[in-house]
Order: sequence, then structure tokens, then C-alpha cells
Amino acid sequence: MPRLTSLAQSLPSTVPFTGPEALERRSGHPFRARLGANESLFGPSPLALQAMARAAEDAWMYGDPENHDLKAAIAAHHHVRPENVAVGEGIDSLLGLLVRLLVGPGDHVVTSDGAYPTFNSHVAGFGGTLHKAPYRADKEDPEALLELARTTGARLIYLANPDNPMGSHHPGTAITQMLDALPEGTLLVLDEAYVDFAPEGTAADVTPDDPRVIRFRTFSKAYGLAGLRLGYALAAPDLALAFDKVRNHFGIGRIAQAGGIAALADAGHLTRLRAWADTGRHRLAMLASAHGLQPLPSATNFVAMDAGREGAHAKALLEALASLGVFVRMPGVAPLNRCIRVSLGDAEAMDVFAEALPQALARLRR
Amino acid sequence: MPRLTSLAQSLPSTVPFTGPEALERRSGHPFRARLGANESLFGPSPLALQAMARAAEDAWMYGDPENHDLKAAIAAHHHVRPENVAVGEGIDSLLGLLVRLLVGPGDHVVTSDGAYPTFNSHVAGFGGTLHKAPYRADKEDPEALLELARTTGARLIYLANPDNPMGSHHPGTAITQMLDALPEGTLLVLDEAYVDFAPEGTAADVTPDDPRVIRFRTFSKAYGLAGLRLGYALAAPDLALAFDKVRNHFGIGRIAQAGGIAALADAGHLTRLRAWADTGRHRLAMLASAHGLQPLPSATNFVAMDAGREGAHAKALLEALASLGVFVRMPGVAPLNRCIRVSLGDAEAMDVFAEALPQALARLRR
Repeated sequence: MPRLTSLAQSLPSTVPFTGPEALERRSGHPFRARLGANESLFGPSPLALQAMARAAEDAWMYGDPENHDLKAAIAAHHHVRPENVAVGEGIDSLLGLLVRLLVGPGDHVVTSDGAYPTFNSHVAGFGGTLHKAPYRADKEDPEALLELARTTGARLIYLANPDNPMGSHHPGTAITQMLDALPEGTLLVLDEAYVDFAPEGTAADVTPDDPRVIRFRTFSKAYGLAGLRLGYALAAPDLALAFDKVRNHFGIGRIAQAGGIAALADAGHLTRLRAWADTGRHRLAMLASAHGLQPLPSATNFVAMDAGREGAHAKALLEALASLGVFVRMPGVAPLNRCIRVSLGDAEAMDVFAEALPQALARLRR
Repeated sequence: MPRLTSLAQSLPSTVPFTGPEALERRSGHPFRARLGANESLFGPSPLALQAMARAAEDAWMYGDPENHDLKAAIAAHHHVRPENVAVGEGIDSLLGLLVRLLVGPGDHVVTSDGAYPTFNSHVAGFGGTLHKAPYRADKEDPEALLELARTTGARLIYLANPDNPMGSHHPGTAITQMLDALPEGTLLVLDEAYVDFAPEGTAADVTPDDPRVIRFRTFSKAYGLAGLRLGYALAAPDLALAFDKVRNHFGIGRIAQAGGIAALADAGHLTRLRAWADTGRHRLAMLASAHGLQPLPSATNFVAMDAGREGAHAKALLEALASLGVFVRMPGVAPLNRCIRVSLGDAEAMDVFAEALPQALARLRR
């Protein structure tokens, strides 16, 4: 076998997130509540399910490599032109393509310490150098990110708004202020995966052709279609078009294109989802408080719960919950890792969590 | 906006294949027969359709990022271990990942002039230098490919067996001979997308852990699931595992994993498909001959038909067919481009082609 490129040799051969299925295989028991991947237990629109079932009958055909109808639907949804849209196999894939287009060895990139690890792996994967600004009061810190970008000459700043894993958010006006302070030649990579769960005014109000920012959205969260693998970017036409240089052109299959179009068309689903999420966040916050955990304010479909001590304690709590059949996750770095991160569940999953949390805490006290 | 990397700047912002949907949008008419993309009009296994419909109900969950059950099913199907398997969003995606792992600026790669353009775009996309050996008697030429690899010090040789776009094939023994003559440090990239349509003994008979070759298979052709986007590679464990460094870990969604597993389990479907393909190839060959075209022998789900003159003539025939509602393709380079390439259709699509071919030829004679 020929040797890998030196860059490829430097990368780990690992799956960055251990999936719940892998944990289930290890323990030999299926989880009773799957509350760790920020999936939507509210599920997708029934219209999307119907559209996917119909499209499956046509799955012998490749999907349209131009994603024409899907891009048109996304553009209409956001009041932009199809030229502003790039479509990909989830935000994960699009982030990788963006880094590939803009970052090479010797280039610098800025993110927050504790923010999305998959973005970091893409930067390493194309030889970029990553710089991390700490969170401030459990939020990503625009000032610190900007300052770090200035001092390093970064090509990209990654910011998720709302944020994962803490569930915090900035108002959209903070993003436009950030854009105005952005160093020349730096692009703001704005991950809005959770924005549909956030208060009105959280989405950045930018003009579609603003060359300083690229926004990412997904069908995996509010649209309840994580298993479909579909996300998109909104950007100035030059940048959106550049994805055609490197994307997997037939990567979005027929079922995914049809599901995405149908999901966007069901506005009522999002309205119902938001009401559901409000109720769920309230219940999770009450549950956390009732058992001595501090729920953080959430603009997402999960609640970070401060377990009040160092990371090892939160990790023990997470493991105790897992042994009781509840899958949750936790942030990877201090001081965020004093928390566990619990996704909103349906009533059944929430009941399981409500029963397991005090049991898990009791085990830790023993 | 920050400037693209110099490598990205060098790449075209194009969709390499114009899809039939784009042609339909341009002409304003849907095709009556879709015979240009080598899709399977025989369709997928009904068991796969059932499994996909069931999985769609669970599409709120991400797919297992380890693709554990799917890899186990693929491994069992090929009598190899899961460690020999890498899974991706179609062979297209996997070829891109392979090139990323092994090829950088200054590295050389060998393929045939007229072979799969998407592979070529991956080599360009990672800065490699491509060298092309001509076809010989409408087949890819192992001797010439090996010689070119020796003189250029190539890291990869791409060979499709059976071949696309000509439909020719070599016996599997020719592949093992090729491996024995492979220069040290060169990997054979063996694209077996069409092998299920080929005569017994066409698939390369290599030991699973042979480090000199990586084999690619797909669910897009024989399994009739082009719209699902699922392919896989079989290779020595070191190489198969290296895909974890760069792949889109959640890229294979729940529906795709379920559909792939169910498709593999339906062995009867492949048997029926092969009988169907025999009949279809025979009918297409008879049709071509009846109208003065020379059908080439096919080990695939398409038939290349020699229109007897230069590329411009075949292109005019292709366009005449398109204007009559028949979508076919043709090879991109001489002398292969004397042919049109017609995928096997169902009875209805074949009837449309049978009616349109003489009409298109008559137009050309006017």
C-alpha cells in the first residue's frame, strides 16, 4: 500500500462522536431514553414522511445533481436567490467543504474552546491551525473571537448561535455588530443549526449577498430529519457557487431532496415544534432544579444542567444515567464540563429521565 | 470574503455531469425514456423499499456513525471482515476520500483516457497530476496503465472492470496478473460498480487483506438504489480504517443504512436482475444492429453503440434522441465518442427507444 500523505498521516483514525448505537452494543442494552444527540423526538413533518415514502419508490434514479427544486425551496423560504444556497450532506459535510475551499497549511482559524469538535477536525484535516477563545459566562465570546482573529490573521471565525453545547445565544444584533468589526479577509462561519428553537431575533439579519458571513442551517434539528443527512449554507453567490468545485455532486439523493422540500413547506410543523420545545425546556429545567442541578437558559432543543462540581463529577453522573438506560452527553472542556447536556424528549423519554436522574444522583452520593 | 486557496481557485465551479433534470428544465419537456445515467430501471428489491419506509419513520435519529450493522452485512456478503470495509455516500464520495488520503501536489495518478471523469476531478481537486493511457480495442489497457504508472511513479492506477463508458470487461484473472506487475507503492483502484452484470469470474479474486488493491462497489447499479447514495470499498484493514480520518462520519443516514442491509439480504433480486439484464442487452443489441449501429459487447447495464463515424455524428444522434424524449449519454473522448451509450430500460422505455432511434437516424440523414 502506498503511504498516506503526510497530512493524512497526522490525522486520527477515529469516529469523533461515539454514537448511542456503539454504547448500546458495548453495554448489551438498548437505551430507554435517547437524549444525547440533540435529535428531535418531536419527529419530522408527516408531509415530509409522505414525500420520502413516495421518493423511495423512485430511488432507482439519481437525485438531481443541481438540487434545483430543493435550492429553489430553500431560497424562497429565506427570501434569497438560489445562487445564495449551497446544499450538502448535513452541516458537517458543508463545514468540511468550506474549510477545504478556504484553509490550507499555514492558515489560521478561530473558534471557541468547547465548541463544535467536528469543525475543529475539518480544520486539522486540511492542515489549518486552530486558535480557541474561551467561553465567557457560558456563551461564545464575540469580542474574544474577533481579537483572536485579528492577532492571528484568521481566515475563518466559527460561531454557533445558538450555541452547542451550552444552549446559550446572542441576539442577532450582536452578530451584525460582530460583522462590522470583522477583520478584512476573515469570514464569519455562523452555525445556526438550532436557531429555529431560539427567541425571535436570534437569526442574524444579514443581506443575502454579504460576503463577510456564511450561515449554516440543517434539517437535522427543528425539522426532525437527522437520519436523512441534509443541510445547507446561505452565502454570497461567489462563495455559494464555489462549493460546486468540491462537493459530492450526486451526494443528495432523491429521498433527501424530496424530504427537504416537503419539510420546508410545512410551516405549521415548526410552530407546533416551538410550542413543544417551550414545554420541554420548562420541564427539563424544573426537573434539574428539583434535584439540585442548575439548568442553564436554553435557546435550543437541549438543556445544559450544571452539576455543580468539576468535570469528573458530571462524567460520573452521565455514566450513572447511561447505566440506567438514559443517553445524554456533556461538554468536552472545562469549565463547561461541569454540566450534562440533555436533549428534549417526548413524554415517555422525559419520564424515563425524571425517574433516572434522582437514582443516578443517589448512586453518586453513595 | 477571504480568497480561496490557490488549489481551490484552480478548480472549475461546475457540475461535472449535466443531469437529466437540468436537460428537462432547459427543454421544457420531461424525457419519455431515461436511459442515460446507467440507473436500474429494474428497480430495487421490494425488501429494500420496505426497510427504507420503516427507517423513514425513525429518520429523526442520526444513523449509526460506525455503520456497524451495514458493514457487518457487507462483510458477510463478501466473506471478509468488517475491518475490510469502508462505507460512503456513493463511490463518488469514497473515490474523493481515497484521493485525499493518498494524493497531494506533486503526486501522480494514472487512468484511461475516457474513463470516469469524477475520479479525474478528485485528482485535480487535491492537486495531483493525472496521466492517461488510451483504451485499446475499446477496453482499458492494463499493460499501458502499468507502464504509465512505472514511468510516472504513480501512487494510484484507476481501472473500472467492467468499464464505463464502453461496457467492456477483463476477466478477473487479468486483474490478479495486473496486481502481480504493479509497481511498489502503487495502489490499484478497482471500480467494480458494474460487476454484478458481468460474466462469472469478472470480479477480482483477491485476498481481503491484499494491500495492493482497493475495490469499490455500489448500491446504485445492480441494487437499483442510485437515489439513496450508498457505496463501499473493500481493502486491507489499514487502508479501510484510514477513511475514518476524513469521512463524513454521520454521512450515511438511517434510511440508507437500512436500505443497504435489506438490499444485500435479497439474493433472489440479483438473480432476477441478471436474467433481466441479459434480455435487455440482447434487445438493445438487436435494435442497434437493425438500424445500422454496431452494438459493443456489454458486461454492464448499458450498451455502447458505435454510430460508425466521428464524435460529432454521435453527438448529433444523441441530441436528436433527446429531442424525441430519449435521454442517453456518450463517451467524452475520441475514439470512444463514435458511440452513444444506452442504459437498459424497462419494457416501456425500451419501446420508446425502439421508436425514437430510427426517427433520430432519419433526421440525421436529412
